[in-house]
Amino acid sequence: MSINRINVERILERIDQLAACSLGKRGVTRLSFTPESRCASRMVERWMREAGMEVRTDPLGNVIGRYPGRKPGAPAFLIGSHLDSVVEGGKFDGALGVVTGIEVVQTLREQGIRPDLPLEVVAFCDEEGARFHTTLLGSRAMAGTLDDADFDAMDADGITLAEAMRTYGLEPLRHREAVREPGTVAGYLELHIEQGPILERENQACGIVRGIAGASRCRFRVEGRAGHAGTVPMDLRQDALNGAAEIVLAVERVAGQMPSVVATVGQLQVFPGSSNVIPGRVEGTLDVRSLDDEQRHTALRRICEEAVRISRRRRLLFACRTVMETAATPCAPRLIRAVEEVMASYGLSALRIPSGAGHDALAMAALTEVGMVFIRCRDGISHHPDEDVSPDDIRLGAAVLLDAVLKLTMETASDGRGGKPLKEAGVRRTT
Amino acid sequence: MSINRINVERILERIDQLAACSLGKRGVTRLSFTPESRCASRMVERWMREAGMEVRTDPLGNVIGRYPGRKPGAPAFLIGSHLDSVVEGGKFDGALGVVTGIEVVQTLREQGIRPDLPLEVVAFCDEEGARFHTTLLGSRAMAGTLDDADFDAMDADGITLAEAMRTYGLEPLRHREAVREPGTVAGYLELHIEQGPILERENQACGIVRGIAGASRCRFRVEGRAGHAGTVPMDLRQDALNGAAEIVLAVERVAGQMPSVVATVGQLQVFPGSSNVIPGRVEGTLDVRSLDDEQRHTALRRICEEAVRISRRRRLLFACRTVMETAATPCAPRLIRAVEEVMASYGLSALRIPSGAGHDALAMAALTEVGMVFIRCRDGISHHPDEDVSPDDIRLGAAVLLDAVLKLTMETASDGRGGKPLKEAGVRRTT
Repeated sequence: MSINRINVERILERIDQLAACSLGKRGVTRLSFTPESRCASRMVERWMREAGMEVRTDPLGNVIGRYPGRKPGAPAFLIGSHLDSVVEGGKFDGALGVVTGIEVVQTLREQGIRPDLPLEVVAFCDEEGARFHTTLLGSRAMAGTLDDADFDAMDADGITLAEAMRTYGLEPLRHREAVREPGTVAGYLELHIEQGPILERENQACGIVRGIAGASRCRFRVEGRAGHAGTVPMDLRQDALNGAAEIVLAVERVAGQMPSVVATVGQLQVFPGSSNVIPGRVEGTLDVRSLDDEQRHTALRRICEEAVRISRRRRLLFACRTVMETAATPCAPRLIRAVEEVMASYGLSALRIPSGAGHDALAMAALTEVGMVFIRCRDGISHHPDEDVSPDDIRLGAAVLLDAVLKLTMETASDGRGGKPLKEAGVRRTT
Repeated sequence: MSINRINVERILERIDQLAACSLGKRGVTRLSFTPESRCASRMVERWMREAGMEVRTDPLGNVIGRYPGRKPGAPAFLIGSHLDSVVEGGKFDGALGVVTGIEVVQTLREQGIRPDLPLEVVAFCDEEGARFHTTLLGSRAMAGTLDDADFDAMDADGITLAEAMRTYGLEPLRHREAVREPGTVAGYLELHIEQGPILERENQACGIVRGIAGASRCRFRVEGRAGHAGTVPMDLRQDALNGAAEIVLAVERVAGQMPSVVATVGQLQVFPGSSNVIPGRVEGTLDVRSLDDEQRHTALRRICEEAVRISRRRRLLFACRTVMETAATPCAPRLIRAVEEVMASYGLSALRIPSGAGHDALAMAALTEVGMVFIRCRDGISHHPDEDVSPDDIRLGAAVLLDAVLKLTMETASDGRGGKPLKEAGVRRTT
């Protein structure tokens, strides 16, 4: 398929229309089960119909458009992303994957192409979890990994997820009906902005996601001894903050020595927190991520060993406990290969990068094989009104998605015919 | 005067009685212009009268007991400390200086001794500033360094100092009447617990204060770039907390290399402060103290140079501004010498230590020559219910105070007669 078949103006127009479904003036604020999310869902439903899809909304509020394949009984190939945003986020995060998904189908239809497998575009309802702190809600519902207890989560106003869904017109108790049977799904491919700076540094518009990093989230505590900032000589202090500062730098050093690992101290609280009192206690969070679970565990062990050593030397106590842990989720080689072949056919190098952030693909991996295409975002900025992606990068990303989907939805892909990018196959039909 | 003349049981009994004038159950909470402070003032007035003093309360609520000297027109020598406490503080901070001051006069009277100069015991009203954040209120009023604006200070309930004083039965507008004329005061000597660990480490019951450290209090800011904790590789980060950690350690290192300086980062706030976001900004406080103003300025300059160097290397911005600065206040050589001679007469070494904390003596230095005697406190703990001082140390401290006062209130001190400790002079009279 020629890149020129992609109607990037239509994509950008739709991104802007979705961005208008927002609370407040700064950036995009579209929390789940709100008037803003309903507005966005309605738009998406309309565009899906316009693109020739049958549209339904599942019990969680995921909007699903289906473009039937030539073999009606075959499992569906899924593409998509999420419609919700963080508070004062950007307009591309999530929305770009939904809109390019629709664009892929609309282009296929405009070109008069019908794949072997049914193609579904999914607009997931609650990936960010900005309202209820329950991430990947829609995709977990579809993958069948949601618990009844998840619906007790509460927003800042004390409204539970279950209540919010009922007010919105959904029935939380029916969430099991959103679960897809594994045999009915042939794979999930998601296009998303990178939300990081790697593609920009490497001067690449698109990247192939190797997998979604596993993460350990820990809470740590450094205990020393509070004292008067004026009366205790430096050599008699047991300053918890000075110890914590050394530990923070150890976190940075350990992660810096392991190429596949990133580690972050994002929160740090100092007690009693008075300008004239030597800190007696510090509490903080440690976030360690890697695509390699073993490397992640090694990093965490080294950090803790360093922290204990530092604390012992300073006569402090160090304690750390892991409060959340997720294993790395590799993307399926078959999907990686499909995207790679498309990019090679465009004469582009196919940079494989890890996803340090979670995405709906992470939840969908419990149901089916997943893959992700990342699009470069300016300065690596995301979750911010300044989030930006260039039209050329969007055009290329949409074309890659389209051609990869074609490869993956042709049953004859294995014999090399259906798998050929349409660009090569010379398909030029228009409706 | 024999140490055995000191009635340490009476001192301890009175300390406990004052400790009962407290709000809440944990430690001592005696804020200014409250029922608790009135209860304490009434007790002190009664003990002063019992010790043979004429008692008055000045317009700020300072309770002043006067033991007339043999020369009625002579300037008065002042001893004392404060009656207020921090929230959940200890029972010795302030109270010990007031009670031993009364004990000194009561012992003199019991021994039938009347010094040449009048002797006044002052129980200052508000040294800690725990209620209105206006420290040294009573002593500043006496020294004439209080402003009308100080009375606009507000407590946590929105009550101004002026309102609280009126409710208490005092007239804030009359605060100028509390000012003492320099010619009427011959000096101020304060006994106080050390509130630090130096005397304990040096195995000394008493120390002579060389002076009260000067202090610089600064607010600093480190600006980096927030980012997703999962998506930004370590080498592309501009993590404000990692930079701040290096700066915290530079503060510790610079102060550690300068014997007369202590420096503390007591507050540190991390923004946005989310476990999965790389810190984009850190704000903190820096407190630098020294008895040597030049050394304090040098330390501050070195710290800022280090911080700028660290920030530049890490592509961060560093900004620091001084929000409060007080010069060091040396104790008067005459008062230091008097205490030193007394301790030498007891066969004790006279350890000279700095006071890193402010005391009423700091404010009184604007009015007259000041001196301080520090008493060892257990584990250096103060401003805490666990604050503790041994009876033996109190006995020794009170004796030192008594003999030093005798030296300093005898006009003939210069000829060596009145200056002799009563112990040597063999005074053994009882009433």
